[in-house]
Amino acid sequence: MKKFINDPNLVVDEMVEGYVDAHKDKVRALSEARVVVRKDAPVNGKVGIVTGGGSGHKPAFIGYVGKGMVDAVAAGEIFTSPPAIAFYHSFKAADGGKGVACLYGNYAGDVMNVDMAVEMAEDDGITVKQVIANDDVPSAPKGDEDKRRGVAGEILMWKIGSAMAEKGGSLDEVIGAAQRAIDNTRSMGVGLSPCIIPAVGKPNFTLGENEMEVGIGHHGEPGIKKMEIKTADEVAGMMLDIILPDLPFEKGNDVCLLMSGLGSTPLLELYIVYRKVSMLLAEKGINVYRAYVDNYFTSLEMAGVTLTLMRLDEQLKQLLDVPADAVHFKQF
Amino acid sequence: MKKFINDPNLVVDEMVEGYVDAHKDKVRALSEARVVVRKDAPVNGKVGIVTGGGSGHKPAFIGYVGKGMVDAVAAGEIFTSPPAIAFYHSFKAADGGKGVACLYGNYAGDVMNVDMAVEMAEDDGITVKQVIANDDVPSAPKGDEDKRRGVAGEILMWKIGSAMAEKGGSLDEVIGAAQRAIDNTRSMGVGLSPCIIPAVGKPNFTLGENEMEVGIGHHGEPGIKKMEIKTADEVAGMMLDIILPDLPFEKGNDVCLLMSGLGSTPLLELYIVYRKVSMLLAEKGINVYRAYVDNYFTSLEMAGVTLTLMRLDEQLKQLLDVPADAVHFKQF
Repeated sequence: MKKFINDPNLVVDEMVEGYVDAHKDKVRALSEARVVVRKDAPVNGKVGIVTGGGSGHKPAFIGYVGKGMVDAVAAGEIFTSPPAIAFYHSFKAADGGKGVACLYGNYAGDVMNVDMAVEMAEDDGITVKQVIANDDVPSAPKGDEDKRRGVAGEILMWKIGSAMAEKGGSLDEVIGAAQRAIDNTRSMGVGLSPCIIPAVGKPNFTLGENEMEVGIGHHGEPGIKKMEIKTADEVAGMMLDIILPDLPFEKGNDVCLLMSGLGSTPLLELYIVYRKVSMLLAEKGINVYRAYVDNYFTSLEMAGVTLTLMRLDEQLKQLLDVPADAVHFKQF
Repeated sequence: MKKFINDPNLVVDEMVEGYVDAHKDKVRALSEARVVVRKDAPVNGKVGIVTGGGSGHKPAFIGYVGKGMVDAVAAGEIFTSPPAIAFYHSFKAADGGKGVACLYGNYAGDVMNVDMAVEMAEDDGITVKQVIANDDVPSAPKGDEDKRRGVAGEILMWKIGSAMAEKGGSLDEVIGAAQRAIDNTRSMGVGLSPCIIPAVGKPNFTLGENEMEVGIGHHGEPGIKKMEIKTADEVAGMMLDIILPDLPFEKGNDVCLLMSGLGSTPLLELYIVYRKVSMLLAEKGINVYRAYVDNYFTSLEMAGVTLTLMRLDEQLKQLLDVPADAVHFKQF
């Protein structure tokens, strides 16, 4: 295991410490729990936006704290849910008097801990409502959408919900927009290599020398199938074949496209895959209204790519266009 | 070699095609040569900023095209200088009537091709002046600074020169600011793994299982020494021990700090290294005025970290603070 770390058991604490130090003009850490918040949180009169989850997905989750994005993030150990108390303190820190929207991914630990934290917050008189992202198509069949995991589509859910909050929306309006965002979002990933959790010290799964994992999860969860590695163009086609029919996305749709590397895949490769995805969408009469291509939601140093599409209506477009100024998500 | 590519010899062409397609609201490609420019280039009455170099360093170089940053980029093959004709067309595309500043790194091929392109442009009546970045301390000893390579410090040179152009500076003022930026900038890198150039198909160098390369170049050039991998804190100290005495950076200095991954090193690890760098600087009475931590200048999927410090005066601070809106470099 070759990594720039000190104690494998302290990687998250030291990462958060470094992050808050580097960006102290924008964020601060709470003393009560491992939570990163906007420096000016809570923003009075604005619905607070909270998320959280296991670490190792940088820039998710703490990179998305900032104006026009998330107010507070509960940061768990690597690939492990934060405890309820961390979500609870996130809610308290984010509440500016209009309630809190907790927008997070569908993982059993996170759901349990958020539910507990919501009860704790209610005892304090803070209203918290939730949206649980389930955009990962390969993780459960159609009809079982509520069993699907949340992956990079969470970023678009945060973007939309946070924009509605920024524009002065009520808690119900924020929850409604975030829910509509994720309901119209589908994702999938293809993995080429595993990663090593520092405290474990060995790869989290294995793949043959020429194999790729189609439908891989953000923690190396197995997908639909292992198969021999294909060309970038074939991978692009395969991902669309899985995503498009599921919603379905159809001719005439405007979409937001988010393509993320899983960690060690160079941006060069992402843009090669993007090229073919864009061509295929154009052939189908689907219009890319806005494209994000970068490392937005990673799994330590896994190699791979994820594709996320969100079908847009006029309101989602307007909310997508609202500026954002998080450390790792800026948009004029 | 597991990569999302099609033809290994077309990776740069297909990447540029995908990039320009994804971000067509901000950039366009020239038809005459492989050059990416601001969509609205040339900006009349503004000094044009041009850079260029080998590909494989994403987001460098084309990710830095945009308002407040670079106007045009000549994109070479992987780790290979663009031809003179590409720089020439970059100059023509960037010239808004106030001349062009070509701000690039100290590599023999780039220097030769830029020199040729400058002569071609002069025949067209376009004035081009140059600044050649040489921020990589380990690449040549003190006293031989003109032999040093340009690495991630180039980004700060672009930022400063572009900001001066944005504020209406003359060509001489832009060149002066960019030169002062790089004269006050020092960098170094530590590598943990090689990368594979697609058309070559095998790693560009080798490192033992527990080895790191101290002072590695952006193309895998050997550095000062190979040694057993150290902790993040030790690596932080080692990098500062090499960078700080070289300028030197001293007590009371304000600095801009840019830390970049080389490709596959997770942001988590960068922030762990940042944490200790920041502590050590604080102990020495050196103040971090602004910190950038991300994958800013990579070498395909190499694992490693680079540290860049720029000593600031009041003018450099003001220029650093000017907003920028490139696809992969945004600052409010």
